[in-house]
Amino acid sequence: MTGIAALPEPPYTAVIFSNLRTEGDQGYAVMGARMQELAKAQPGYLGYESARDADGFGITVSYWADDHAARAWKQVHEHAIAQQRGREVWYADYQVRVATVGRAYGP
Amino acid sequence: MTGIAALPEPPYTAVIFSNLRTEGDQGYAVMGARMQELAKAQPGYLGYESARDADGFGITVSYWADDHAARAWKQVHEHAIAQQRGREVWYADYQVRVATVGRAYGP
Repeated sequence: MTGIAALPEPPYTAVIFSNLRTEGDQGYAVMGARMQELAKAQPGYLGYESARDADGFGITVSYWADDHAARAWKQVHEHAIAQQRGREVWYADYQVRVATVGRAYGP
Repeated sequence: MTGIAALPEPPYTAVIFSNLRTEGDQGYAVMGARMQELAKAQPGYLGYESARDADGFGITVSYWADDHAARAWKQVHEHAIAQQRGREVWYADYQVRVATVGRAYGP
């Protein structure tokens, strides 16, 4: 479980990655752990939240200082290789929505 | 499983609701189904995606035509009552982030 990310005050950028996994692991867990590690080391990384249903539908949201930081992460070489393998092996379908968070609140 | 929402081209508004459930159902499933039904009937509703881990951490993203539609949904009376009960009973913690989606892409 990732839990709720502790973030600074808005504005910041959210990358909403909604996806449906294929069957079986096929190296997915190892890649996922490595991508989390790599993302945390990127400039402008703010946080990460992820949840997946038992039936394989998942939502991961990564948070970035700004749109530039989010775009830079997409281009990181090892991440680009993971995205390619994602299209070929791990995901039956996905959508990425890149958004600017304007306000945030808790309980 | 909600699956991936079919949405129009950006821009639109995403309400990211990250939450941790308390133990037990306590009327949560019935309320959830009713809130989905009610949201779909609101002006500017575009779609909905939700995933929850086995350990109770969940992310729900609702999509709206614009910020005005998202704010109006927050104020709907029956929804406001559900939010109050959420704070009191269903959620151990949560954060809401309201964001403007600027771009979206799939595989």
